[in-house]
Amino acid sequence: MQRLIGKMFTSTFKYKSLEECHDAAVLENPDARIAFTTDSYVVQPTIFPGGDIGILAVYGTVNDLAMAGARPLYLSLSFILEEGLPMVDLWQIVQSIKNAVDTAGVQIVTGDTKVVDKGKGDSIFINTAGIGILNHNKIISAQRVQAGDAIIVNGDLARHGMAIMAVREGLEFESSIKSDVAPLNGMVQALFDGGIDVHCLRDLTRGGLSSALNEIAYAAHVGMEVDESKVPVHEDVAAACEILGLDPLYVANEGKCVAFVSEKDSDKALQIMRSHPLGREASIIGLVNGRESNIVQLKSKIGAMRILDMLSGEQLPRIC
Amino acid sequence: MQRLIGKMFTSTFKYKSLEECHDAAVLENPDARIAFTTDSYVVQPTIFPGGDIGILAVYGTVNDLAMAGARPLYLSLSFILEEGLPMVDLWQIVQSIKNAVDTAGVQIVTGDTKVVDKGKGDSIFINTAGIGILNHNKIISAQRVQAGDAIIVNGDLARHGMAIMAVREGLEFESSIKSDVAPLNGMVQALFDGGIDVHCLRDLTRGGLSSALNEIAYAAHVGMEVDESKVPVHEDVAAACEILGLDPLYVANEGKCVAFVSEKDSDKALQIMRSHPLGREASIIGLVNGRESNIVQLKSKIGAMRILDMLSGEQLPRIC
Repeated sequence: MQRLIGKMFTSTFKYKSLEECHDAAVLENPDARIAFTTDSYVVQPTIFPGGDIGILAVYGTVNDLAMAGARPLYLSLSFILEEGLPMVDLWQIVQSIKNAVDTAGVQIVTGDTKVVDKGKGDSIFINTAGIGILNHNKIISAQRVQAGDAIIVNGDLARHGMAIMAVREGLEFESSIKSDVAPLNGMVQALFDGGIDVHCLRDLTRGGLSSALNEIAYAAHVGMEVDESKVPVHEDVAAACEILGLDPLYVANEGKCVAFVSEKDSDKALQIMRSHPLGREASIIGLVNGRESNIVQLKSKIGAMRILDMLSGEQLPRIC
Repeated sequence: MQRLIGKMFTSTFKYKSLEECHDAAVLENPDARIAFTTDSYVVQPTIFPGGDIGILAVYGTVNDLAMAGARPLYLSLSFILEEGLPMVDLWQIVQSIKNAVDTAGVQIVTGDTKVVDKGKGDSIFINTAGIGILNHNKIISAQRVQAGDAIIVNGDLARHGMAIMAVREGLEFESSIKSDVAPLNGMVQALFDGGIDVHCLRDLTRGGLSSALNEIAYAAHVGMEVDESKVPVHEDVAAACEILGLDPLYVANEGKCVAFVSEKDSDKALQIMRSHPLGREASIIGLVNGRESNIVQLKSKIGAMRILDMLSGEQLPRIC
């Protein structure tokens, strides 16, 4: 099995640093600040409408780097495989990873594989760590969010979570809901290239939009006001959420982020995002205010105000 | 559980970059080539004589960076925990990690935790990725190994593998065999500081000494001759190997490496290693020759020559 896996990887990822080095990849001096991140991926099912655990492992880590304002360059790739995993499944996921790194413009430069006995894992877990460079002097951080900032999302919410849940619950919809998993580094770079002074970026993964906004409000000691009618949610996703009793504002996304920019930059930022394939449905969903520190308020579609809390209780398990 | 884990980590690893950044750590420009590595750790049992999975996850990755000639600086830390894992076990391992990073002089700068349902994991898996800098222009690589090079190990072999196996097999020895798990970066730095032109370094983990030598012989297209009587193996370890029918030259180590240096440097290198606490039993075990390309020969204690092959068949599972 180890030999087969070895062949699978070396034939798929023919990168210089993988061939030359044994224990670690040696990389040229990036001549810039670097960003470093890691995530383990345990999503079930491993293959789902719109993606698989391999794509998720690449884009998830690419997006974490992009959210830090970094240009993603290098990924590590580490598998924990359960004995008995069909090689054809692994091969499919390795090919997905290859396509995903090519699409995102990053390289797998180092890796590892462990096999655990049957019943001691769950087919496939993947860890990716990532290195990116910050080729600018900007600080992209929750601490920079301030009263007057516009809150922009790059598209419709809750698709990743609902794609997974629909499969798990065996729900049959007229049209299958596909995960939105996508690499956001290109769109973020377009914002930088367009001269937008982005204050903060955050991907809307576990806990969805509401968790991200609450975390940022808390870190920046600001209040926020979100207009529910401006938050894009597709009809089929909204229907699926209703059936399962889930609020789309709390459901995970894998190709969506929120950007905070000062009001004067907001129209230009929106335009840049809408010109990018991953931001066509971008929308200014609200504003940061200086009142009611740490509180995120939601103006519902019928005009009522309510507090948009952190998710209390269990989040959906193994969504990424 | 997530909240408890969060508290456990933030109270233990109070590093600047962890506090300020959400998705990724932003690090100063290292102004040098960087090395990047990853490993997932699935060792069973997770706590063993001489160490635990946490120590292993730190030192294993530190050593991979050191073997690439890099000074390890930053680690990522990612857990996959099985539901129901006793918090007290996790706490012990997190404290081990804290002690290990302090000992090795590295920092945990980013992390992640996933929880999987009971029966879908095995108490605790850890991934660490690591970044190191190469603050020299040397190339440390199997390709630099050449005829005449001395082969040096920094101490006695097979302790890690036998410590794990003894627990698993329920063997009772008079004195418990302890894993040799240790961070080799300091000793490697001492070699560099001493002006040794190290050609190649390799840690003797899965597959032990013989796998490492064979891989390097193959990559460098050289032959090697190893004198078994020069290879340090402690008596209790040798006895345990005999009971289990294992050859210590194939058993995993976690604090041992092999260094290739030109013959003129070999005495000085040996002296530097022996002056370091982790190299007190360092020994020149053999030489690289230009004959019989790719073949590693072993001169046994009774003087007979045999070929020291790659391990064929199964390696010990889940040894790291």
